[in-house]
Amino acid sequence: MAATALGDLLLDLLALPSLTGEEGPVADWLEHRYAGQRVRRAGNSVVVGGSDDGRPVVLLVGHTDVVPPTDADRDPRRDGDRILGRGASDMKSGLAVAMDCFETSALRAGPYDLVLVAYAGEEGPHEGNELGAVLTAMPDLAEAALAVVLEPTDLTVQLGCMGALHAEVSFLGRAAHSARPWQGENALTKAGDFLGELHRRPPHDVDVDGLTYREVFTATAAWTDNARNVVPDRFTINLNYRYAPDKTTAAAEARVNELVSGRAAVTVVDHAAAGRPRRNSGLVADFCDTVDATVQPKQAWTDVARFSQLGVPALNYGPGLTAQAHQAGEYAPEANLVAARAALAAFLAGA
Amino acid sequence: MAATALGDLLLDLLALPSLTGEEGPVADWLEHRYAGQRVRRAGNSVVVGGSDDGRPVVLLVGHTDVVPPTDADRDPRRDGDRILGRGASDMKSGLAVAMDCFETSALRAGPYDLVLVAYAGEEGPHEGNELGAVLTAMPDLAEAALAVVLEPTDLTVQLGCMGALHAEVSFLGRAAHSARPWQGENALTKAGDFLGELHRRPPHDVDVDGLTYREVFTATAAWTDNARNVVPDRFTINLNYRYAPDKTTAAAEARVNELVSGRAAVTVVDHAAAGRPRRNSGLVADFCDTVDATVQPKQAWTDVARFSQLGVPALNYGPGLTAQAHQAGEYAPEANLVAARAALAAFLAGA
Repeated sequence: MAATALGDLLLDLLALPSLTGEEGPVADWLEHRYAGQRVRRAGNSVVVGGSDDGRPVVLLVGHTDVVPPTDADRDPRRDGDRILGRGASDMKSGLAVAMDCFETSALRAGPYDLVLVAYAGEEGPHEGNELGAVLTAMPDLAEAALAVVLEPTDLTVQLGCMGALHAEVSFLGRAAHSARPWQGENALTKAGDFLGELHRRPPHDVDVDGLTYREVFTATAAWTDNARNVVPDRFTINLNYRYAPDKTTAAAEARVNELVSGRAAVTVVDHAAAGRPRRNSGLVADFCDTVDATVQPKQAWTDVARFSQLGVPALNYGPGLTAQAHQAGEYAPEANLVAARAALAAFLAGA
Repeated sequence: MAATALGDLLLDLLALPSLTGEEGPVADWLEHRYAGQRVRRAGNSVVVGGSDDGRPVVLLVGHTDVVPPTDADRDPRRDGDRILGRGASDMKSGLAVAMDCFETSALRAGPYDLVLVAYAGEEGPHEGNELGAVLTAMPDLAEAALAVVLEPTDLTVQLGCMGALHAEVSFLGRAAHSARPWQGENALTKAGDFLGELHRRPPHDVDVDGLTYREVFTATAAWTDNARNVVPDRFTINLNYRYAPDKTTAAAEARVNELVSGRAAVTVVDHAAAGRPRRNSGLVADFCDTVDATVQPKQAWTDVARFSQLGVPALNYGPGLTAQAHQAGEYAPEANLVAARAALAAFLAGA
């Protein structure tokens, strides 16, 4: 296919350095590009638009940061039908599509009040992700009718997200010198049957709005704290439960307690609620119908959930290839950008 | 009973400060006490005697250091039939008995060439124990016919010692994101059946020279190294195997491999050989017959094993109470000192 303006925009974005933690230049560039419009900045995140004129607000959301490049994707370039560079798929192609729609006057004047959200820190540790701070600093965003997060999805629509909790499951015993273990009770070996049960437990598929979410319990870490010549009096397993969006947080925690059934002490140490897909109602249904793409459940926890938790219907849809994310020689097919742009524009035009 | 000179000697020893790492004053005191004899010093350990005249050498062995006192045993004193003070049972009472025999001319002139070994650092970390350095610095000690280590044994004779090895048993899997655990293999839950087997495994009694040693496998520690949202690709268990002195180190390691039977990778990280009791031969048999006390197997690993490993028959026999070791208000019955002294003297006299 011929080179497109959309592809050129992606190359402009790829030319801007924006490793996680170093998103200042791209934020400055965005501020400059949208000078004269309503531009709000928090940290290295930039939010543009929002006329507060009563039309339903649609957020076009993307993160600006990328993981460190390898030698194979240090120099952004076109190569035939592909555009190469760090972040080409994850997710500067999505950001380019969002910007291109956002910059189209006819769409800005359409049925939806468009807001561009370009945030920093998505690829780094949780605490550096600026989306939470942006949503706190700009509470009006929580009143949006829809958030389209343009992470790479291979042009499929991904709805909802699994809930995810981490619970520390502590088996308790009684310490003793390991020369006379029969004087104690071994908390570590006591956990054997529980671990064996987990090992044999298959994933559990749950249907929500016609989408299948795969629930899993995973023991992801474990530790003792005693010296090497002592019968452990405590053995702790970090249990990660990922559950379908038909469950409340309370129901999920009850499920963990049911699984452990009194054999160990359970402490939930982290809990992110699930996001309902809302496949069949409101703008999500409109989006799916208009875009006419494969609709899939979202198995992982993503920033979509931050919107869900605020009550904002949200979905993932983007031109990037999931298999290219974080890969050496990362690329995106230019045709995907064009297709995503056309589909998103059709929805935003109220077609 | 009336106060004895032996009890007074114990009180003298208790009056000398000798926390682990601070055995200088007691070592100086011993050097001074035995000035004019053959005195050898290594660190804060003192070795006295040894005439190299062809008689079988008997080592009288004790450590000088004590664990930190509590308020209840800070002031050494007689209280009726008891002598109180930090180290009264563990093991300054044993040291007093050894010194009293060693200082008896008739015993020094008897059938055995006596050597007093008063060493430092037994109560602290392994690497601070000076007995190893003493045995290295004075290789003639390895030619002794018997080592009597006067640790608290409640006036029983304790023979041999269990072997002890630590093996890291690593279950291996394949990492995956915990949102899609079915793409990996969980090394942690894979260990469940093994831990369950260990939990249900009873101790195994082994008879050696008519003494019963209780063999045990104990999982004493466990850990993963991955992040909380990852399926563990490695889960390591520290397995402590304590085995009877009928086994060589090679046989013990083979036993561990048999137990794991290929399910995990096994690395032996520490291994102390067992010491045979030699109940029925040589000076150990003579000692048991003369002392006429209950003869027991030694379940724990003690410094007796250092002698065994050098080929020196060794045993534990002492006046201290095992239940008093490291306790607040530690004491030893003065009658025990007298009884131990009489029994040891009878043996040393060749009765």
